[in-house]
Amino acid sequence: MNRRMIFNTLGRLLIALSVLLILPTGVSIYYKERCTLAFLITAAISLAIGISLTLLCRTKNHVIYAREGFAIVSLVWLSMSFIGSLPFVISGEIPSFVDAFFETVSGFTTTGASILKDVEAMSRGLLFWRSFTHWIGGMGVLVFVMALIPNVSDRSIHILRAEVPGPIVGKLVPRIKDTAKILYLIYIVMTVVEIVLLALGGMPLFDSVVHTFGTAGTGGFGVKADSIAGYSPYLQWVIAIFMLLFGVNFNLYYMLLIRKFKAAFKSSELWCYVAIVVLSVAAICLNIYPLYENFAEVLRLSVFQVSSIVTTTGFATTDFNLWPDLSKAILLILMLVGACAGSTAGGLKVSRVVLIFKIIGREFKRLIHPRSVSRVKFEGKSVDETVLGTVTTYFAVYMAILLSAFLVLSLEPFGFETNFSAVVACFNNVGPGFAGVGPAANYADYSVLSKVVLSLSMLLGRLEIYPLLLVFIPKFWKKD
Amino acid sequence: MNRRMIFNTLGRLLIALSVLLILPTGVSIYYKERCTLAFLITAAISLAIGISLTLLCRTKNHVIYAREGFAIVSLVWLSMSFIGSLPFVISGEIPSFVDAFFETVSGFTTTGASILKDVEAMSRGLLFWRSFTHWIGGMGVLVFVMALIPNVSDRSIHILRAEVPGPIVGKLVPRIKDTAKILYLIYIVMTVVEIVLLALGGMPLFDSVVHTFGTAGTGGFGVKADSIAGYSPYLQWVIAIFMLLFGVNFNLYYMLLIRKFKAAFKSSELWCYVAIVVLSVAAICLNIYPLYENFAEVLRLSVFQVSSIVTTTGFATTDFNLWPDLSKAILLILMLVGACAGSTAGGLKVSRVVLIFKIIGREFKRLIHPRSVSRVKFEGKSVDETVLGTVTTYFAVYMAILLSAFLVLSLEPFGFETNFSAVVACFNNVGPGFAGVGPAANYADYSVLSKVVLSLSMLLGRLEIYPLLLVFIPKFWKKD
Repeated sequence: MNRRMIFNTLGRLLIALSVLLILPTGVSIYYKERCTLAFLITAAISLAIGISLTLLCRTKNHVIYAREGFAIVSLVWLSMSFIGSLPFVISGEIPSFVDAFFETVSGFTTTGASILKDVEAMSRGLLFWRSFTHWIGGMGVLVFVMALIPNVSDRSIHILRAEVPGPIVGKLVPRIKDTAKILYLIYIVMTVVEIVLLALGGMPLFDSVVHTFGTAGTGGFGVKADSIAGYSPYLQWVIAIFMLLFGVNFNLYYMLLIRKFKAAFKSSELWCYVAIVVLSVAAICLNIYPLYENFAEVLRLSVFQVSSIVTTTGFATTDFNLWPDLSKAILLILMLVGACAGSTAGGLKVSRVVLIFKIIGREFKRLIHPRSVSRVKFEGKSVDETVLGTVTTYFAVYMAILLSAFLVLSLEPFGFETNFSAVVACFNNVGPGFAGVGPAANYADYSVLSKVVLSLSMLLGRLEIYPLLLVFIPKFWKKD
Repeated sequence: MNRRMIFNTLGRLLIALSVLLILPTGVSIYYKERCTLAFLITAAISLAIGISLTLLCRTKNHVIYAREGFAIVSLVWLSMSFIGSLPFVISGEIPSFVDAFFETVSGFTTTGASILKDVEAMSRGLLFWRSFTHWIGGMGVLVFVMALIPNVSDRSIHILRAEVPGPIVGKLVPRIKDTAKILYLIYIVMTVVEIVLLALGGMPLFDSVVHTFGTAGTGGFGVKADSIAGYSPYLQWVIAIFMLLFGVNFNLYYMLLIRKFKAAFKSSELWCYVAIVVLSVAAICLNIYPLYENFAEVLRLSVFQVSSIVTTTGFATTDFNLWPDLSKAILLILMLVGACAGSTAGGLKVSRVVLIFKIIGREFKRLIHPRSVSRVKFEGKSVDETVLGTVTTYFAVYMAILLSAFLVLSLEPFGFETNFSAVVACFNNVGPGFAGVGPAANYADYSVLSKVVLSLSMLLGRLEIYPLLLVFIPKFWKKD
């Protein structure tokens, strides 16, 4: 374990954070808000820690293996969440540190779960910062999960191959930095296009920007108490479509960029994703039609809510907690599934779910023909047995963590539906759940313990569990 | 696939069913009830079908491979449930066939979920039959899962070894029939001892017998509206302890019988089972103490409810649905875990859960030491990789079925907690769930579709999923 390199990298990323803080500072200056000072203090702290770390931990060896990658990812998300919560605390707009930490973790992990009881009372600068953390978090996921991790060179690549099935960007473009650049470019272009489309549709520029941040990172923080419900149908459609687009594996956009159209559209994960969305929309349309009796509205509501939940964004155009049980059950299952691997979405990911069903299918084949040897194929290639093992094991860890967090949350008196959906919504980086944490409610009433557990759930979900758990094992930090 | 042999065996088991029907017939004659005729008609039908099948499907080849075993198990449980529901319908006491089928499936699968709104209004003969199906079902599980299946001779033994980890009876006693005899003997002796202990404690003989049937099969059908709550603390303790005893792997009793004490008490599954029970009881005691403030009562209530749920029996001495959320969450997780493999209990089984956690532990080891090769050990032996794969795959199938059944049940307007716990309680063969299907409620208000889905869930849970699903795949029935 190259500890110097880890803390050196962390230091450089904290310097980057202080630079990123210029943007919300600018916004708060523009709106002449008192939180300007809070941003400046935070930027100074981040810069100071960042510079100290880079100076204290100099190293010439910059090779990143899986273990170092895991350590960096975990430390970056944790320390950014700590420092990122300072503007809320210093400005006094979220006086409790635990609340501010929850809100910031929720931002960086692109969850969108909020403890704010009155979002519209917040200053513009902090609202901007809140949504900007989504955008930064989404960017981070693209690099860490896609560019950094598939390049590690030892055995653990098996786990990571399972996490990012399908074509690996690292193989298309040999160097990490090039890959990251291309991904960022796609991400930024899509962001700009969405801002423009929203602004053209009459959404105020500030709202367009923050909502686009929420869409791009599949986060879900908004600026209105009723999320997206108050905007025009056109604006709702734009956001719904962009949520779906940000839920697609970014490799596919890269392939479109280099004109490999056939390869891009042959992705079975893409088609499963489309099928899941279409089927869910159809079922919910039928289920909620009696409530509205206006097909255009029913379709818009269904598409928006399905897109928002399957991509684990969490925007809402209606209080879907009031929908019939079937629609809510479908949304709950979509929360678990999530969108495509290699996107900014959370959840299990479509590719993992598809692989799990293929593994189950093979088990049945084996039971009928005990002597048959059949391999599981995915995206045209047969998948290694070790990878298959890691997928089902991941699912088991995933369920174990979900149930453990649920157990701790059950200390709260809010009832089964609230507590269970709170865990599902946070762990899968969705945001709103049902009942007491539905889209019309918030997480403010949870105890400090529950808020900490939910924050950890968000981080575990975002970092695909293992990296964050490993940093708590002392053996992990041993020198080689 | 030896279809003749399958239907021949089915025929012989239906003849056995007609013989078993003599017992409830006797009870209803003794109490001079009108349902006597219903039992006689049912016995005649079962006998007629049984004899026809044995005569029509003669065969000399009686070797049972895994596929034949699966087919027999599924057909037996399905046809016994069909025929076993006739007394309820013919007598008119449960006029709806779907209701009667639900109740009988619930009996044979040792679930104990009921659609009866007023159990105390039922005739004695039918109450006896209802509980007797638990006892027969428990017996069936012991033979099929333990004696029959580990003796199959081809590759599929891998799946079955995973289902019955630990010492396999088939290896201790070479012939199936001997194994079955020993298991039945242990089962019958324990049954008699419990009946005697209950009767000595002042429970009426009829009640003692039916409650013992419910305990032995880990079923849970009672004869009172408040289940076991109205009986003395002594009787409640006897039932609690026997529920726990029937949740232990029957191999261990066999080992005690042949004086292999050390081997029996070295079973890690046993100690995990004990640890789960002790920890759950302790947590619930702390959690519910403020409600009762009488330690003896709190301990008795906790032990009883934990024993009832972890063994998937489903008796109750209080309406645990009114307990705080934490206690309910613990009970929900116990429902999923279940008791030991090789017992009459349902659920995932302790051994499977332990294996899953060991597989997860190894995954972490691998991530820290990527080049390490470590094998998972269980009960002192290292477990084959194929078996490990089948365990995590089983867990995935298990969750997939649970969520699918939940989706269908969500068509009902009863809310998340009711619908979700109904599926968990039926699929794991527990019986009562929470809210609308809590111990003080019943399954009567569910629609026909939901009752059919829940009946299938009970059967899938009882037969460990694969056998029942396979019989619906046409390829499965092909001749070799």
